[in-house]
Amino acid sequence: MSKPRIAIVGCGYWGRNLIRNFAELRNVEVSVACDFNLNALAIVKRRYPAIELEPKFQGVLDDPSIDALVIATPVSTHFPFARRALVAGKHVLVEKPMATSSTEALELLELAERRGKILMVDHTFVYTGAVQYAKTLVESQQLGDLLYFDSVRLSLGFAQNETNVLWDLGAHDFSILSYLSDQDPVAVAATGVRHLGSVFENVAYVSAQFSSKLIAHFHLNWLSPVKVRRILIGGSKKMLSYDDMEISEKIKVYGNGLTSNLTPEGREQLLTGYQNGDMVAPRLHTEEALSRMATDFADALYGSSRPVCDAYAGYRVVRLLEAAQRSMMQGGGPVELPSLDHSPKASSFRPRQGGRSFLVRR
Amino acid sequence: MSKPRIAIVGCGYWGRNLIRNFAELRNVEVSVACDFNLNALAIVKRRYPAIELEPKFQGVLDDPSIDALVIATPVSTHFPFARRALVAGKHVLVEKPMATSSTEALELLELAERRGKILMVDHTFVYTGAVQYAKTLVESQQLGDLLYFDSVRLSLGFAQNETNVLWDLGAHDFSILSYLSDQDPVAVAATGVRHLGSVFENVAYVSAQFSSKLIAHFHLNWLSPVKVRRILIGGSKKMLSYDDMEISEKIKVYGNGLTSNLTPEGREQLLTGYQNGDMVAPRLHTEEALSRMATDFADALYGSSRPVCDAYAGYRVVRLLEAAQRSMMQGGGPVELPSLDHSPKASSFRPRQGGRSFLVRR
Amino acid sequence: MSKPRIAIVGCGYWGRNLIRNFAELRNVEVSVACDFNLNALAIVKRRYPAIELEPKFQGVLDDPSIDALVIATPVSTHFPFARRALVAGKHVLVEKPMATSSTEALELLELAERRGKILMVDHTFVYTGAVQYAKTLVESQQLGDLLYFDSVRLSLGFAQNETNVLWDLGAHDFSILSYLSDQDPVAVAATGVRHLGSVFENVAYVSAQFSSKLIAHFHLNWLSPVKVRRILIGGSKKMLSYDDMEISEKIKVYGNGLTSNLTPEGREQLLTGYQNGDMVAPRLHTEEALSRMATDFADALYGSSRPVCDAYAGYRVVRLLEAAQRSMMQGGGPVELPSLDHSPKASSFRPRQGGRSFLVRR
Amino acid sequence: MSKPRIAIVGCGYWGRNLIRNFAELRNVEVSVACDFNLNALAIVKRRYPAIELEPKFQGVLDDPSIDALVIATPVSTHFPFARRALVAGKHVLVEKPMATSSTEALELLELAERRGKILMVDHTFVYTGAVQYAKTLVESQQLGDLLYFDSVRLSLGFAQNETNVLWDLGAHDFSILSYLSDQDPVAVAATGVRHLGSVFENVAYVSAQFSSKLIAHFHLNWLSPVKVRRILIGGSKKMLSYDDMEISEKIKVYGNGLTSNLTPEGREQLLTGYQNGDMVAPRLHTEEALSRMATDFADALYGSSRPVCDAYAGYRVVRLLEAAQRSMMQGGGPVELPSLDHSPKASSFRPRQGGRSFLVRR
Repeated sequence: MSKPRIAIVGCGYWGRNLIRNFAELRNVEVSVACDFNLNALAIVKRRYPAIELEPKFQGVLDDPSIDALVIATPVSTHFPFARRALVAGKHVLVEKPMATSSTEALELLELAERRGKILMVDHTFVYTGAVQYAKTLVESQQLGDLLYFDSVRLSLGFAQNETNVLWDLGAHDFSILSYLSDQDPVAVAATGVRHLGSVFENVAYVSAQFSSKLIAHFHLNWLSPVKVRRILIGGSKKMLSYDDMEISEKIKVYGNGLTSNLTPEGREQLLTGYQNGDMVAPRLHTEEALSRMATDFADALYGSSRPVCDAYAGYRVVRLLEAAQRSMMQGGGPVELPSLDHSPKASSFRPRQGGRSFLVRR
Repeated sequence: MSKPRIAIVGCGYWGRNLIRNFAELRNVEVSVACDFNLNALAIVKRRYPAIELEPKFQGVLDDPSIDALVIATPVSTHFPFARRALVAGKHVLVEKPMATSSTEALELLELAERRGKILMVDHTFVYTGAVQYAKTLVESQQLGDLLYFDSVRLSLGFAQNETNVLWDLGAHDFSILSYLSDQDPVAVAATGVRHLGSVFENVAYVSAQFSSKLIAHFHLNWLSPVKVRRILIGGSKKMLSYDDMEISEKIKVYGNGLTSNLTPEGREQLLTGYQNGDMVAPRLHTEEALSRMATDFADALYGSSRPVCDAYAGYRVVRLLEAAQRSMMQGGGPVELPSLDHSPKASSFRPRQGGRSFLVRR
Repeated sequence: MSKPRIAIVGCGYWGRNLIRNFAELRNVEVSVACDFNLNALAIVKRRYPAIELEPKFQGVLDDPSIDALVIATPVSTHFPFARRALVAGKHVLVEKPMATSSTEALELLELAERRGKILMVDHTFVYTGAVQYAKTLVESQQLGDLLYFDSVRLSLGFAQNETNVLWDLGAHDFSILSYLSDQDPVAVAATGVRHLGSVFENVAYVSAQFSSKLIAHFHLNWLSPVKVRRILIGGSKKMLSYDDMEISEKIKVYGNGLTSNLTPEGREQLLTGYQNGDMVAPRLHTEEALSRMATDFADALYGSSRPVCDAYAGYRVVRLLEAAQRSMMQGGGPVELPSLDHSPKASSFRPRQGGRSFLVRR
Repeated sequence: MSKPRIAIVGCGYWGRNLIRNFAELRNVEVSVACDFNLNALAIVKRRYPAIELEPKFQGVLDDPSIDALVIATPVSTHFPFARRALVAGKHVLVEKPMATSSTEALELLELAERRGKILMVDHTFVYTGAVQYAKTLVESQQLGDLLYFDSVRLSLGFAQNETNVLWDLGAHDFSILSYLSDQDPVAVAATGVRHLGSVFENVAYVSAQFSSKLIAHFHLNWLSPVKVRRILIGGSKKMLSYDDMEISEKIKVYGNGLTSNLTPEGREQLLTGYQNGDMVAPRLHTEEALSRMATDFADALYGSSRPVCDAYAGYRVVRLLEAAQRSMMQGGGPVELPSLDHSPKASSFRPRQGGRSFLVRR
């Protein structure tokens, strides 16, 4: 197979990050940069003189030398652009969220299956050293049964003009939850508020219930002058804390005393102490997550593996976003979700057994 | 007036803390320690040989030399003990929560009013340097309009055998919210789970809506091997972060850029930066909160002031706990709360205008 | 043996802390509080009505019912008071530093030996959970050979009117170094400055050389509005960081990659990464250090053990302080110290082999 | 003037960082990459296809189209390469340290003066938002008189094979000290050790004395598995803490209580408290320091300004390194430094009065 040729569609801040990472890969070639904004293209040209510029999306679709599209355009265009690309016979990597409804997401998924094309979503956080490490802990049962998953994600996001905080920040957390737990909620409830005259919710609280005992909860907030990104995962054996705002020691794993038989003195000490059991902060791989994501897509183009964040992963996240959105619009009551396992389509698009092991490389 | 004589009822871990703090005050005398557990009394005797021991609650009630009772017994006894004490003509300081239902709380409040006795609740956190400082920021409008109040309170609490995490940890947060915002929610919704075979909820999420734009949210959790106590208060002008697990710099106040007219570059910088605007961590008074609480009660005994955490404050907190409990039992849907302002009793037990200013003493 | 009776001499801030801790012990009795300041005695009386008050030091010496003295008076009085107490046949616990010269310290040590009395110094930090844990790591060779010991201790200390920052803060660090390393420097060099018109040095840097490869260094500083207390201990296997200003996770133990055979990529990753190897923050015992120190003295009074911070430990610390002081006065050049092992007195006052194991109790 | 053409000499890890930053500038052109290592050149080519490759240093010197050289080669080559470049009529930006002796540094400085060429040193840290902010505080006298400058810089550095920890890490700290204080020490003393069989010192302590009351101190350490980069600057009015390992709030400015007239209670509170006075963590500019450094050099090429880190700045740093090295080799005694102000050359190469204001851009 000759080296796959890639077009980047959408050359804003994030699109340029994608170009930078794909340009570093040896097994693909970034051939075309596409954006209707000529200034954005000019910036690309300055850094990468060899990349062709293309102001029209159709131009990329019509170019038979292009094998794959990387779509980093506004959310509302993810579905139409990805669909047109698949129809045109291109492999697709699309930014999160994959689509704006589960119907759209399913349509893309099935289209990709029928055409035999790769469809992958850029859930970048899944590729961080922290989340990868957490995955190994969950899978090896070191946390025990999952009891709670609690995420707090705050930043300044008032300049958003197309979507609310749920679809923006929530997509990150839902993809992490989905990847780590490998469980799908049976119900989702969400409350949001629109502060400071915004037409979009800029603060939202979401909770998700599972058929297991797991409870998940999300605080999504665009009105914080300081960035907060903290996830706590409580298990029956250990608790994991993930603070993405730390330079090192992002992950801390705490032993707990939950199952001990305690003397009264031990009990009082546990209740008044600050830390129960040792804490371990593992060394994490520090490779840029976006680089690993790009590698995953490039490898998939060679057919050697199915990407971790495949279309099914994208669909699961959109499904949760949609349910949370509906709950928010209905006043916060829980919205039930049908089991994915009983879906006639589940078997076909489940990740292949024996697929590529995506272990932490130290 | 001669020096008021106080009896401490309940001499466990917290009761002994109360004895230590009241014993330091010059204007009251800790005369009697009461507990049916003779070991607890023996510990008190060793430290304070001058304090009389009394194994029976009735014995304290019958003692005409006792002016006031400090009740630090299990939650279920707060109401009956406080009621009997008020009926017996004693002033009362009772641990939080004041009672286990709003009906009980109201009955105590009205009883105290009728008998002309002080009834105060030990909402200790209200007396911390951090909360006192936050109060001055809110009152002086330095935060602007309150947009969100978000509290996360986790610790190990599995040894509780009488109540759930809501009534235990939530009482702290509700008292802080109530004190700082001086607003009462119009609806409360709560979800809780019982993990590890507990008969009481050990993880709960509570949200509260207000007639203003404020939204409040609480993560209460007994299953964390590491203590977390973080409150974020977002205002239209500034955001306050309160991390009680820091030795210093517990309070951080962040300027925000929410109202600025931004250039595109400024916007990108805000979105990608970690901190927008300066942060100030004020020096806080470090006097023990329990000591200030004890002082507030002692001063009230002299009639010179109404305590900050009076019966009305206790009632407001119990009302929220009750509503959250009902929501939790009903599956998480919002429980509406009638306006307190339309209550016929509100005027009489509202805090006196022009009452004692409880400013931060530096 | 009947319960030993103790007199506390010096009832200021620290003396009252000592009274509080000794009063909690079951196997000794705090009988007398001694201070020429009657206000200080009045404060003690209010808290501990059963303790007798004695305004004159001689009065305590003359009281045959007193078995032991706890001396918490100004530094310059440590030697004369301890000497008079030993001569009068009392056991002695004295605040750090034990004396103001090594000659004095040796005289006390030998006096105690001759009279068969306990002489102990309150090196409180040695009894913290953090230092105790570090000791177990050093003794079990988990850190490997000690390479560097670096301590930074800053706070506000401008109100001192009897001594400089070296004798005040340095005594803590020297006692920790001495206890943990069980090595004595062969040379000490120190530089100090007197800022803001002080007649005493308020900033000092001290380094100590050993016959092993260990190097120790101390930054002692009274001119910092924020408290800093950080010790780093680098070993050939692991590195330990001790930050006493953290509420939890005071001790962090880092694996290192120092001995690995590295590929060029591994080398670059080590050089650019933030953390190499996992980190472990052990749970520490949280018992108050002063309480454990008091227990050590009380146990020693029963003859059941030799105190960890015995007269010899006190002598070693004073010897280092004296050498550092001399270096500082001579302009910073190194001051050599004779080997303690060749001292004729070393064998007699070395800690007994097989002495009480002072292990971390969890 | 046509756009200056630049050659990057040395295309390792840091050289590639320089290429990336210079390639982003609009007013210069990165024309040539030079390295005898062809692999390094291949990596450059892949990222920047338009850059010419040149394996020989002489080739760059002989190319008349090249205006300026950026030298990022091993330390020992800084002097010969920079000298040959200046002789060949090129402007020069050289990595730190500028040379390996003050004689060499002076020779380069004078050569550049005579030839009328720019000679600048890459003291990257000087261009960080943190150091720039600190400079504004010092210059506006907000810290008051400087009392102490204390730097701690630890990381893993065992792979170094050409120099010791002093010349590697110390160059950073000396450049920061020199820039911020605008003072030159009168004496420097240093102690170093060689651990783990290294032929170069991997731990060093350096102190510097000034004719003012300032004392500076440096802990330089290559044997730490965790990166530490903390600078404390104590002034008579405020204290500044700079922790480069924080993502946000790198700079904290503490008010102090040093000059207050205190009551005894206030004094006790100061001594036992953790924080005295408010702390402010300013928002810092987050532009990459290396980008600002590159801009400074590019602007200088246009003659519009003298670079902040000019040859004189480079000379001052090398002079300190040299003195510290000498002290280390002599056993740690202080090495005196002649006053720069009496040097006949000082006036000519002092930074121009009224030079470019390098203020913090927010």
